[in-house]
Formats: sequence, C-alpha cells, structure tokens
Amino acid sequence: MTITPEIQKQIEEQRKSSHQSLREFSPGMEKNLYTLFPILDHGFIRIVDYMGNDSSVVQAARVSYGKGTKKSRTDEGLIRYLIRHKHTTPFEMCDVKFHIKLPIFVARQWIRHRTASVNEYSARYSKLEDEFYIPEFENLSAQSGINRQGRGEILPHEEGKKVRKILLQDSTTTYQNYEKMLSQENQEGLSRELARINLPTNVYTQWYWKVNLLNLLKFIHLRIDTHAQYEIRVYAEKLAEIVKNWVPITYQAFNDYWLEGVSVSQQQVTLIKQKMDGKDISFEESGLSKREWNEFIEVFGLEGS
Amino acid sequence: MTITPEIQKQIEEQRKSSHQSLREFSPGMEKNLYTLFPILDHGFIRIVDYMGNDSSVVQAARVSYGKGTKKSRTDEGLIRYLIRHKHTTPFEMCDVKFHIKLPIFVARQWIRHRTASVNEYSARYSKLEDEFYIPEFENLSAQSGINRQGRGEILPHEEGKKVRKILLQDSTTTYQNYEKMLSQENQEGLSRELARINLPTNVYTQWYWKVNLLNLLKFIHLRIDTHAQYEIRVYAEKLAEIVKNWVPITYQAFNDYWLEGVSVSQQQVTLIKQKMDGKDISFEESGLSKREWNEFIEVFGLEGS
Amino acid sequence: MTITPEIQKQIEEQRKSSHQSLREFSPGMEKNLYTLFPILDHGFIRIVDYMGNDSSVVQAARVSYGKGTKKSRTDEGLIRYLIRHKHTTPFEMCDVKFHIKLPIFVARQWIRHRTASVNEYSARYSKLEDEFYIPEFENLSAQSGINRQGRGEILPHEEGKKVRKILLQDSTTTYQNYEKMLSQENQEGLSRELARINLPTNVYTQWYWKVNLLNLLKFIHLRIDTHAQYEIRVYAEKLAEIVKNWVPITYQAFNDYWLEGVSVSQQQVTLIKQKMDGKDISFEESGLSKREWNEFIEVFGLEGS
Amino acid sequence: MTITPEIQKQIEEQRKSSHQSLREFSPGMEKNLYTLFPILDHGFIRIVDYMGNDSSVVQAARVSYGKGTKKSRTDEGLIRYLIRHKHTTPFEMCDVKFHIKLPIFVARQWIRHRTASVNEYSARYSKLEDEFYIPEFENLSAQSGINRQGRGEILPHEEGKKVRKILLQDSTTTYQNYEKMLSQENQEGLSRELARINLPTNVYTQWYWKVNLLNLLKFIHLRIDTHAQYEIRVYAEKLAEIVKNWVPITYQAFNDYWLEGVSVSQQQVTLIKQKMDGKDISFEESGLSKREWNEFIEVFGLEGS
Repeated sequence: MTITPEIQKQIEEQRKSSHQSLREFSPGMEKNLYTLFPILDHGFIRIVDYMGNDSSVVQAARVSYGKGTKKSRTDEGLIRYLIRHKHTTPFEMCDVKFHIKLPIFVARQWIRHRTASVNEYSARYSKLEDEFYIPEFENLSAQSGINRQGRGEILPHEEGKKVRKILLQDSTTTYQNYEKMLSQENQEGLSRELARINLPTNVYTQWYWKVNLLNLLKFIHLRIDTHAQYEIRVYAEKLAEIVKNWVPITYQAFNDYWLEGVSVSQQQVTLIKQKMDGKDISFEESGLSKREWNEFIEVFGLEGS
Repeated sequence: MTITPEIQKQIEEQRKSSHQSLREFSPGMEKNLYTLFPILDHGFIRIVDYMGNDSSVVQAARVSYGKGTKKSRTDEGLIRYLIRHKHTTPFEMCDVKFHIKLPIFVARQWIRHRTASVNEYSARYSKLEDEFYIPEFENLSAQSGINRQGRGEILPHEEGKKVRKILLQDSTTTYQNYEKMLSQENQEGLSRELARINLPTNVYTQWYWKVNLLNLLKFIHLRIDTHAQYEIRVYAEKLAEIVKNWVPITYQAFNDYWLEGVSVSQQQVTLIKQKMDGKDISFEESGLSKREWNEFIEVFGLEGS
Repeated sequence: MTITPEIQKQIEEQRKSSHQSLREFSPGMEKNLYTLFPILDHGFIRIVDYMGNDSSVVQAARVSYGKGTKKSRTDEGLIRYLIRHKHTTPFEMCDVKFHIKLPIFVARQWIRHRTASVNEYSARYSKLEDEFYIPEFENLSAQSGINRQGRGEILPHEEGKKVRKILLQDSTTTYQNYEKMLSQENQEGLSRELARINLPTNVYTQWYWKVNLLNLLKFIHLRIDTHAQYEIRVYAEKLAEIVKNWVPITYQAFNDYWLEGVSVSQQQVTLIKQKMDGKDISFEESGLSKREWNEFIEVFGLEGS
Repeated sequence: MTITPEIQKQIEEQRKSSHQSLREFSPGMEKNLYTLFPILDHGFIRIVDYMGNDSSVVQAARVSYGKGTKKSRTDEGLIRYLIRHKHTTPFEMCDVKFHIKLPIFVARQWIRHRTASVNEYSARYSKLEDEFYIPEFENLSAQSGINRQGRGEILPHEEGKKVRKILLQDSTTTYQNYEKMLSQENQEGLSRELARINLPTNVYTQWYWKVNLLNLLKFIHLRIDTHAQYEIRVYAEKLAEIVKNWVPITYQAFNDYWLEGVSVSQQQVTLIKQKMDGKDISFEESGLSKREWNEFIEVFGLEGS
C-alpha cells in the first residue's frame, strides 16, 4: 500500500487534535488510534474510534451480579470467570470502529459475521483503484491432499512464478479493460456499476467496520484458526494484537480458555478418565470416528493406536 | 429516587477523572456524562459512556460514497439525505451506554427492542430494594373507550385516591412478605430467586443498556409516540433530549422526517392530488377504511365528510 | 392449567385438518403438533408450526461443501462434524414456532435470548387471567450457601407451608385488587395498562415464540443447565424432548458434544497430560484458581488435593 | 442457465414425494416448490421450503391483542392495520428458504441484509463452474449524468458490442487461467482458495438463503426500487411475485402502503395543506432543498416552480 504524503498528513492531523474527556479510557488504544497497520500487499487496519475498557466489562457484570461482589472478587477473577463460563453479555459493552482495506475475496468471508456495522466504499458511486492482491512466493501453496478446503506445501519456485505472472497479468488486463469501458472519450462510457463486474476478487475494497468486543473475540477465534484462509488470518492476528493492548485482562482470559482451550466430548471424558487411571485406551474401543480419534490423541500428546 | 450522599459522591468522582483522548468528541454528551436524570418517582437515566458524533455518521457514509462527495455536499445536507432516504447504516456507527432504573413493567416493553446489549441487576443474586412505582394523580387514567390499549380521562380524585391506596398497600404487603420469606431468623430462608416472584411488576429494577444511534432513534420513534404507555414515554422523551445534545444535526433531521413526517398510502396520494386540483373528495369514494379516512383528514387538517 | 372442553375441541380440530404437502417432513413433529404439554402448575408448550428436519441441515451444509462430499460422507457423520467443530450456520435452516404459557418471571429470563420472534399476549389490550405459579413443596428451596444465585436444600415442611400460604394469599389479594381497580361499576375504572402493574411476576402470560434450530439448541444448552432456575429448566427439558423427536441425529450430536462435553483450558490440558503420564498433579502447582480446580477434579473424577 | 436433464429429473423427484401434514399450508407455495425460476443468463431462484401463511400472521398478532378481537375484525383488516402502523413482529412468524444462483457482485449487495441465514457454495472446497454474467444489449447502460450511482441511456449498439466482447473475453481468459493454475498435470497445482481470486465478480455462485417474511419484505422494498442495480432488481421482482402467491393479503397491504406509499416530511405536510387550501406554493418559500422539492412535485404531479 502506498502511504501517500497526503494520507500521512491526514493521520498526523487526526493524532494532533485531542480533547479532555470524562469517558472510560484505554492507553493501549489511544497509542494506536488512526495509525495505519499494513496488512498483505496493499491492505491495512486503522482504529478509528473505540468505547470502553476492561473496567466497562466488570461494571456491566456487576449490575447483574448486584452489590455483593464489589469487594470479594477482583476484576481479573471476575473477567476470567465470565470467559470460562461463557457469560458473554458484559463483553458487548465495549465497541471499536475500524477502517479496513482488504481484497474482495477476504471481504466476502468477513461479512459473514453478521453482528457488526459496515459501510463499504461504493464501486457504483466511485471508481476503484488499481490495487490487487498478488501473494508472495511463500504464500503460494498447493491444494492440500488431506483437507479439501486447505493448503498444502508451498509451490516450487518455477510454478510460483507462473502463478504470480498469471495473477498480475489478469489483474492488469481486467483493470485496463475496466478503464476502457468507463472512459467517456469518443464514447458514452459504461456505468460504473457494470464496468466493475469485470474486476477479479483480488481487487482491494475498503470499509468502516464497527463491532462490539464480544463479536470481535468471536471473529478472532474463528479467523485466527489454522483452518482459516491465510489472507484473513493475517487480519485476525493484527486484531488480536489490538485487543491485547485495549483490554489486556480480557484478552488473557480469552487466550487461555477460548483460543488455547479445547472442547472434549462425553466419550472423550471417559477415555481421559481411563487413561488417567492407568488403563490402556484404543481407537477400536473408543467409540470415536477415525478423525475424532486423531484430533484427540494430537491434543493430548498420545501415541496413535 | 433517593440520591444518597454516597451515590452523589460516586458521581462527583466520576465527573472529576478525565483523560486527554484522541477520539471523536461530543460536548453535549460530556456535559451530561454520569449525571442522574430522574424519571418517574424512583427511576433515572444516566449516560455512562458514548462513542461518536455527527461527524462519525458523515465519515462512514463517505466511505460508501467515496471521495466524490467531499466538497459538493455539506455534512448537514448529507445527514438529511441519509435520514430522508432511510440509508440507515451510517447511524449504527455511534454508540451510547446508559445506566437506567425503571419499573419491571416498563423493562418488559423496553427489552422487546432486540438490537441492544443489556446487563440487568440480578434478583437471584441480590435482594431487590423497596422501591415501587406509584403513579401521580394526573397519570391515573381510566380505560380508553375508543382505543382498546390506551388511556382515557384522568380518574376523579376520589377514585384516584382509592387506586393509589391499593397500589401502595399491595406494594408494601408483598415487599414485607418478600423479606419475611427471605429472612434466615429462626428459619432456613427461601432462596432469593423464588422469594422475588411475589413482587408486583411496579417494583424497580436497573440495568446497563448499550445501543447504537440507529436503534436508539428507532426506540425513541416508537416509544415517544402518543400510543406508547406514558411510563415508557417519559424515558423516551429524556432520551430524545440526550440525542439532541449529542448529535444535533442528526436529531433535527430525525425530527423533521421521522417524528413529524407521515406515511401516505397509494390511495391517499391520489386523494391529495384530487384535492390539490380543487376537486372534492369524500370518504365514500376514497377507498379507505373509516379509520384510515379519519387519520387522513386529521393529518391534513381537512373537514370530515 | 385447566384444559377447558373448548380448548380441547380447538386442538382436536387443528389436528384433524391436514394437507398433502411437498415440504420436508418430520414424523416426530407431526405426532405432537398442536398438543398441549403441561409445564408447572398452569403453563404449557404447544408446537404450532415447524420447517425442516435433519436433511435440511445436511442439504444446506452440502451447498457450502459442494458436490464432492455427497457420496463419501454419511448424513450422520456430517452432522456430528458440524456440531463438533461449531460450524453452526446449517442449523439455522430449520425453524419452529411454539405457543407457550409461562409465569412473567420466567418470561423475563426467556426474552434475553434475542435471536427469536415473539408476540406476547397484551395486558394493555386484554385482561389477564387469574393464574399464578405457586411452587410445589419439593421445589421450595432455601437460599444456597455456596452459590449466591442458586438454591440449596428443600425447606422444612412447616416453613414451606408458610411460604405457600404467603404466595397464594398475595396472588389472591393483588388479583382481587386488580379487578377492583378495573371495574366500571360505580366508577370510571382504571386503564388496563395501569391496573396490571399491581400483579406479581408469578402471574402467567403467554406468547408465540419462533426460533431457528441453532438458537433453540443454544437456549436449551443454557437453560437445561443445573445453574438455571428450576422454573425455566422444566421448559428447557420439554423443548429438548421435542427437538429429540424432531431432528434425532442433530439432537444426539448436540447431546454428546455440547450438553455432555466440557471445555478444557490450556492449563488443564497440561494437567491432563501430566496425569496421563502417571505424574502427580496438585492444586498448588496447577496454576488454577480454587474454583477452577474443584470444577476440574469433579469433571474428571479425581480426588481433591 | 442450462437446465440439464439430471437437474430436471431431481426437481421432478422432489415434486413427487409428498406427505400428509398438519401444518399451515399455502397453495401458492406448494405450486412452485422446487421449481427453477431462471433469472439473468445463468441464475435462478428456487423455493426449497416454507413455513406459515397469512393466517400465521393473524394468529400471532391475536395473541398479543388477546381474545377480544377475534370476531370484530377481519383477517384482512388486521393485516392492513399491522402493515399501515408498522407493527411488524407478526410478519416474522413466516419463513421461507430459497436456493439461489447469482453473480458474486449481486451476492455482495444481497448479503448486506443481515437478518437471514446463508450457506454458500464454497470455492475453497469445490471448483467453480464456468458461468459468467454477460449483460444483454438492452441492459448495457451509460453512467448516469444526474445520479452518481445509477445508469443512464442504453449504450449505442457498437459500443455495447465492444463492452460485451471485453466482458466475454476477460471471463474466458481468467477462467482458463483459473483452470491452468488448479491443474495437477505436470505441476503441483495451486490451492482452490487461491486460484479463485483470479475470477471476476460476474462469475456465478449459489447459496441457500432462509429469511422470515418481514425481512423478505424489507429486502424487496429496498431492492425492487428503481435506484437498485438492475441485476439485483430482477431477483427482487421474482421474490415479490413469490410472496404475492404465498401470502396474498399481506402482499397487497405491503404494496399499497410500503411499495406505493410515500413518506412526507413535516415541511411537506404544510405545503400540501396550503396547496389544498388553494394557495400557491413555491420552491423559494418551501424551505426544501432543490432535490427534495423536485421529488415532492414529482410525487404529487405538480408543476415545477
């Protein structure tokens, strides 16, 4: 992404104008407000506004828990309890608004998270810029043989070169044709809303995205996962870092229980008990499907049967 | 509502601690932050946090409208256009969090607005206070004869007195019995979650309520209406005042188009055209139901047929 | 609940009129359609309409997974995979509509589940019936000493008698006063919307509640839990039974992974691995809070430290 | 769209298997169930399941209005009242599930309607088909000079030919390159999730889309509008036809009040009153913006100032 001097100047201006405010405050957010965090080759994430901090979560939880807890429980203990037991409503009390630039194919996955507010740049109203996502060599992976919706090994360099050449070429050609169809020189010029249908989904778009903390955690949980497509995962990773700075106690609990925790089925609880008792367990007698068994022994570092 | 010295002190403390912040700022909100606005006999509304202002709406709308508009349209013109054409997503970009005390029967209407975040004081966890809504004489109205779900004339003073006496007495008795069942003197003491079922719905509860600007406008629109029950209307009126101070341009547009505007059906457009042409119109030939006809002639100040 | 002959007749009529339909069909739902399932002393659940079955979930999932899976995976395997990995959107493809009668204090917990559609009987429009929830002796429990929002032991019979007497008496008195205030004999009569504020939250209301399968499972998961209040748990239990008949494969997977499964934190995974390796583990070195440790050893049947 | 014999056979089978069901029934839906309605060059809409009919709306409304109304108001009168006064919750009680094939650029507008359930064909999991939307000559319009996000005149035939040639050519080239990158002959083959980013947004995708009646009406209202892009409008028009067959009373009311009705602002009400009184009105004294004035005189068939 080209950070033009003009954009740089706007950001500096936004970072100069401050106000004395009585609101809840987060030093970790103020520090990053308005700054452009580059993602992929032309994308970015910018925090544009926020509301609340770890205390806002505690405050909301304590209304529903009443006066009794004020002394007996520390804020951290309460937040960890809420995360552990999935008492999630207090985490809706914080909000954040981002300005995000991202390729359309990433935007299409992103928008599936319905509980959020979005205003997107309109390609009916304005012309799209000539910016396309072209993966680096190390991100050009072959189709996975075991996971139908995943990636396998990185392509050999020569094959990678061919792929990058195709992507670059088709981006260039389709954009030139986009401009050709739009042009009003010696012709009427096609409407923008039609001309843009010629552009591939690696073209960049941008939007304002506002989401509450709970739904942001859900987004990160799903999209930071190794099964998520790399190109959305890098956005999720940056968002995780932002949340860590914003609400450090909440983030730590989220990390321990949700990100790094695992779900264990009724049958797996039985297997764990047996193994802890020193008994042998085996796939054949486990009652699990092969896939579940494999997931199970991997998580708990057991040897396969 | 008794504003105890302790509560008063807490509010003063909240209003003392401020931070220099880079965020969007609203003078009309800062002025009122944390203050208790009394509603009904024991209720209140307090602004606890907020995000955004009129500019946030414009900023979000301009991403979707792209660069082209920046010069040609003023912020006010754009906001009025958005409200007029119900392009509502940019109004989701502002948020506000309230601390509200309200009778349970009002809370039950309030909670029907689903797109919001709520944490309520838990009567399973803590004991409810001895505070009940007892209407003033001027709000004790008879059943409306024309509107099955509305109020008619104010009750004669003597009848009002009887009603107030009943409400006070039953509130007192049920609360005394609530405490009697809870008591652990010389008995086990009933669990809080069961004892509270004896309290009438005029008992006060409280909650944190967070909502975005769009859904707050929808709430106000519905609940400030003359058909809304008086006891929720007074909350809506205070919220309207708060919004007016927060986002004055948005509020003015909301008032002109949504609050004071009217919806006109296909048939009514035809009637208006005829009347403007100097032709006579009549109920019989209007194709409207009697109810619609009455609403129509009232709005446009016509004489009935 | 009094099932009057009139109601009985209406239900029989509804069960007589059938149509030949091309839609997805569930024998387990058709069998129960319109029937009243009594809950608590005057409440009920009735299925009023439904859409979809286990196949609808599979069908929706297969669009997103494409043609490739059709042969290789059984329906059951796919549904279990979806539940295990929380790929929840296909479960939104089934819907069910209920007619439910329930005390107001239960309705207040119920309505917190926002993703559903509700139409409630209006006490502004019509008079409420004289029906109040009075708990049976075996459900009159003392306040729990360990769980601030739970119940402990059942009250001694004599104390239970006193509680029931109070609840009955206050229900009767407040209802008589409700009628007295409404009455238009020799007085104007208070409006319904005001008179009803005198009634305690154990009075019954009723509503139509429509919800998709995913959100119904979430409701059951939360409300069938031992920490839920008994009076909503009995509704959740009946709903679970209904779901089991409706979509048996989905229900079984839901039971194995969500209801009977457990969440294990990062720290707990480490503890399990150590224990499986034959090493000793102790609270002191676990890094868990006392509360977490207790939950942990209970789930896995370990002895406390 | 090529309706292959295989697809045709599947549809015929779905239309053969029926069940005797006690549920609410809609003849207008049964008639169309599973049938493919072609839209654009390769798209379609198919009804896959539904729940409810006009009676379901009435039934839900009557719970909230209680018993009192049963005799005094006809179903039609009640439905028209609900639509006129925007008492919208009863319209959430009906649901419909569609199978839809549509170009990605249309899907991107569609998905902005958040209150719905979607399962989309996954181009990470399966290969996309070689189907692209190429507009007919009569739909190839120039950029509108007055409306920045709209279309103007149809392009001259020669220019249209050039545009169609470009769109066809770029679709073909990018699809060939898509296949070339995926191919595993003499190379590893790029993962599907990456190869597909080369395809333009006029490529077709498909999904299951489930929505309740209220949100379907909102969708139609917004997307049948002349300001909506033609390519989504044709879907909205077919959906309107389907709704008309499904719930004819609701559709008629929706048409009269929402589709054909207009919103009139406070200032415009004043102007209408003046004009009805025989007074002259003028833009200069109206207090309206030029744009509003133009809209106003057009709706009411007045001559411009």
